[in-house]
Amino acid sequence: MTLSHENSADTFVSMLERQWGQENFVCVGLDSDYNRIPSLLKENTSVEDALFAFNRAIVDATHDLVCAYKPNAAFYEAQGDAGWRALQRTVRYIKETYSRIPVILDAKRADIGSTNVGYVEAAFDLLGVDAITVHPYLGQEALAPFLARKEKGIIVLAKTSNPGAGEFQDLLVGEAREPLYQVVARHIATRWNGNGNCALVVGAPYPAELKQVRAIVGDMPILIPGVGAQGGDIEATVTAGKDSRGQGMIINASRTIIYASSSSDFAQAARSATGQLRAEINRYR
Amino acid sequence: MTLSHENSADTFVSMLERQWGQENFVCVGLDSDYNRIPSLLKENTSVEDALFAFNRAIVDATHDLVCAYKPNAAFYEAQGDAGWRALQRTVRYIKETYSRIPVILDAKRADIGSTNVGYVEAAFDLLGVDAITVHPYLGQEALAPFLARKEKGIIVLAKTSNPGAGEFQDLLVGEAREPLYQVVARHIATRWNGNGNCALVVGAPYPAELKQVRAIVGDMPILIPGVGAQGGDIEATVTAGKDSRGQGMIINASRTIIYASSSSDFAQAARSATGQLRAEINRYR
Repeated sequence: MTLSHENSADTFVSMLERQWGQENFVCVGLDSDYNRIPSLLKENTSVEDALFAFNRAIVDATHDLVCAYKPNAAFYEAQGDAGWRALQRTVRYIKETYSRIPVILDAKRADIGSTNVGYVEAAFDLLGVDAITVHPYLGQEALAPFLARKEKGIIVLAKTSNPGAGEFQDLLVGEAREPLYQVVARHIATRWNGNGNCALVVGAPYPAELKQVRAIVGDMPILIPGVGAQGGDIEATVTAGKDSRGQGMIINASRTIIYASSSSDFAQAARSATGQLRAEINRYR
Repeated sequence: MTLSHENSADTFVSMLERQWGQENFVCVGLDSDYNRIPSLLKENTSVEDALFAFNRAIVDATHDLVCAYKPNAAFYEAQGDAGWRALQRTVRYIKETYSRIPVILDAKRADIGSTNVGYVEAAFDLLGVDAITVHPYLGQEALAPFLARKEKGIIVLAKTSNPGAGEFQDLLVGEAREPLYQVVARHIATRWNGNGNCALVVGAPYPAELKQVRAIVGDMPILIPGVGAQGGDIEATVTAGKDSRGQGMIINASRTIIYASSSSDFAQAARSATGQLRAEINRYR
């Protein structure tokens, strides 16, 4: 059941580095909601085929402008087994057609260690993605089955993009009274990253926090959601988020790209939106 | 796509109360790993049918001894769309055959608010479970789509059962230098529970922490994993975990019940193991 990839020696990080070298920092979030995709795609076809056709068109229209694709599992799970198959076909299509582009499964998983084996198999072996997002709450010991996959990317939530992210993430911890999200970032950078396969999530609506995390983690990749519909500012994001080489960023936009148009020109509109975001990012690097 | 249940007026909590009234506190974890189920079930049949047949046999053999069933999503996701269908058929079978028994989807989900809608639909509308486990890290604002489902149970991770749970959960927070897991428990009990549909997870290997959480949350239901293969002690668990009525506990065992035998007597062995655990719990209440 394991997929074999053409570039099996590539790691998630090496794939990212190659994309960054081509000034590609946009990650397109394939948050493909069956209720929101253009109705013309839904005529006389199945949920699975409609979702896959939508994703394929978006990918074909944007592949030379992006550093990664990031389907979010929730939108596919909402369609049951048909959604799972659409997700699997989407990942396979990207790997077969644009094998240099890493695919991040935004699934925000994390269970105890023996159970995480199932999530690892689902994401990396069955779906064949290159990276996955995970919650930090259970700690490194529980996440060992993820962290053991040296060639994959393990992207840990530090400061999330939602308005209420601070309820626990901003709590001041220990004698140093350091915010929890910074403690998480420090643990990932100094303890969890023995295989060099860790990355972090910091939301674009929080550029000051992004700057703090960048100072803690050096050149570790940071996945930065929330620049589009969630209102993050590009200049502030890039200024705070870039690493010592002006790189290190996976800047995700979902709704502003994939729903840029609801008509037959949706893929071209997605390309335009991706290109504009790409240019704006590079202006401020 | 929404399932209609016979007892649609029942809430997760009212279903639990009814089971507790019959001295049922065991939750059977349907962590059904295709690689571990009896080989006799796998002959000449599909992954989907084998997983479903295993679960149905376990449920039929234990239904009068339990307060809930808890399938963990990871084991089904590891089998792709076939696993999803086996999970869906399992939930439907329990709801149709033993409709008084609540089903908890142990999925440990949590994303930003608009994305959580997809997980809510998958769990409560497509699968039709009565409760779900969630990570606290994104805060109440993000989890609003879960918390809004008054009739369902939203079971938040506080202190998990794994050996390394303390990496972040035990960090001392704020002026009061209170462990993070206690802060989480207090927020859930005093801020998140406006609909009376919250519960918490505290692992059996940590009876002292369980006692602390019980003191914070009053009679709120606590899901307690880790009494079987993970080594939690029953007397210590019940003494620390019972509420003011000697109830309030959902004590989960998975591997020690569902894999009690790998032969044709696996269902009867599961019944024996469930009955022994049930008796031991009631001995110490």
